[in-house]
Amino acid sequence: MKVQIWSDVVCPWCYVGKRRFEAALAEFEHRDQVELTWRSFELDPAADPSSASADGQYVQRLAAKYGKSVPDAQQMLDQMQQVAAAEGLDFRFDLARTGNTFDAHRLLHLALARGVQDELKEKLDNATFTHGLAVSDHEELARVAVSAGLDETEVKSVLDSDQFADAVRADEVKARAYGISGVPFFVVDDKYGVSGAQPPEQLLAVLTQAWAERDPAPVLVHAHEGGAMCDGDSCTL
Amino acid sequence: MKVQIWSDVVCPWCYVGKRRFEAALAEFEHRDQVELTWRSFELDPAADPSSASADGQYVQRLAAKYGKSVPDAQQMLDQMQQVAAAEGLDFRFDLARTGNTFDAHRLLHLALARGVQDELKEKLDNATFTHGLAVSDHEELARVAVSAGLDETEVKSVLDSDQFADAVRADEVKARAYGISGVPFFVVDDKYGVSGAQPPEQLLAVLTQAWAERDPAPVLVHAHEGGAMCDGDSCTL
Repeated sequence: MKVQIWSDVVCPWCYVGKRRFEAALAEFEHRDQVELTWRSFELDPAADPSSASADGQYVQRLAAKYGKSVPDAQQMLDQMQQVAAAEGLDFRFDLARTGNTFDAHRLLHLALARGVQDELKEKLDNATFTHGLAVSDHEELARVAVSAGLDETEVKSVLDSDQFADAVRADEVKARAYGISGVPFFVVDDKYGVSGAQPPEQLLAVLTQAWAERDPAPVLVHAHEGGAMCDGDSCTL
Repeated sequence: MKVQIWSDVVCPWCYVGKRRFEAALAEFEHRDQVELTWRSFELDPAADPSSASADGQYVQRLAAKYGKSVPDAQQMLDQMQQVAAAEGLDFRFDLARTGNTFDAHRLLHLALARGVQDELKEKLDNATFTHGLAVSDHEELARVAVSAGLDETEVKSVLDSDQFADAVRADEVKARAYGISGVPFFVVDDKYGVSGAQPPEQLLAVLTQAWAERDPAPVLVHAHEGGAMCDGDSCTL
């Protein structure tokens, strides 16, 4: 059964959603037959690749964005941090940076081709939210990619080219076609969609339902027309 | 797009349905992206493999089965023959035999593995309805299989073993799961089913509809729950 998760690497709820999906999958009887693919979604495609915001400015940006005081913005981050902590995640918004994630998504497609996509997704999310990764920085991206098992030479040649740009764009085109406006967004067997970091039990319920329906009987078309057919040892005339 | 057709080689409407499907496919814009598989369906699994009924007895069998006089039964066959003739088929019920088709279906699965399944299906149907093939006879089956491009040694080793028996049974299990009680039965993309030798325009309509729907947006599950998500540059809290 195929599961696709649209996600960005600068999306805190995407990392929380990753943990919740992993918890759901751990409880899913047919987990060995689930094929997971991470799909690209840029929350801010216009973000400047050259500027990862500096340490400690995450809360200021948030305050400005929501028109709140810094203490109020910090309270919002604290709440988010507590939800993440409940999933075993250590969100360090004091270190967190932002930036353009297009190249990170290109590397996730390289990792998909090399069979280590989930490993890289985990390391990118962890580097971003726990270790203050400058997500647009090629040297930092390469270090994370190699730690996920990718070949350094290949990683650098991808970063220095536009390889996998088409794959990133294709994921984003598909997201629009699916009406996906925010992430994380889970798609099970191209059939069911789950928007947001839902609790594991709800994700498990969708996996279970999709599994039960994975091979439906075809809908009969034109049956009323009574096409000429043979049944058992006799044929209509 | 995947098309599966459940069919038997002693099923006159299946051969008519094959021609009608071919006519529909010829008109289908995306025919190059259609992958056709013939699926096994035995109309009479209990038929004796050792006895193919002798020449000329088809009409007697039909008369006995329907409790009609031989002339009335012949009239039924004449009607069927006319329908077949309209599809360019020459049905020779005066030559037609019956028999157990299990081994013919095993060879169709060998042909599937070798990429010549449609060629063999055509030759088996033609041999049965135009040339009086004794469908259970290994020598006659081998001759037809080789004429379809299969290797004679491999064909004989399959006939002398139970190779592909599981594949035939699996098709029949799937047919029951799909509620298929008669053939031909067309299944498009595991989604739409067409029962009987429907006119080409109806088969084309189903191909067209399935193609248009081949990549539907996923049904949103639990959307009302409002899972934590990030959208554009902001995240829910």
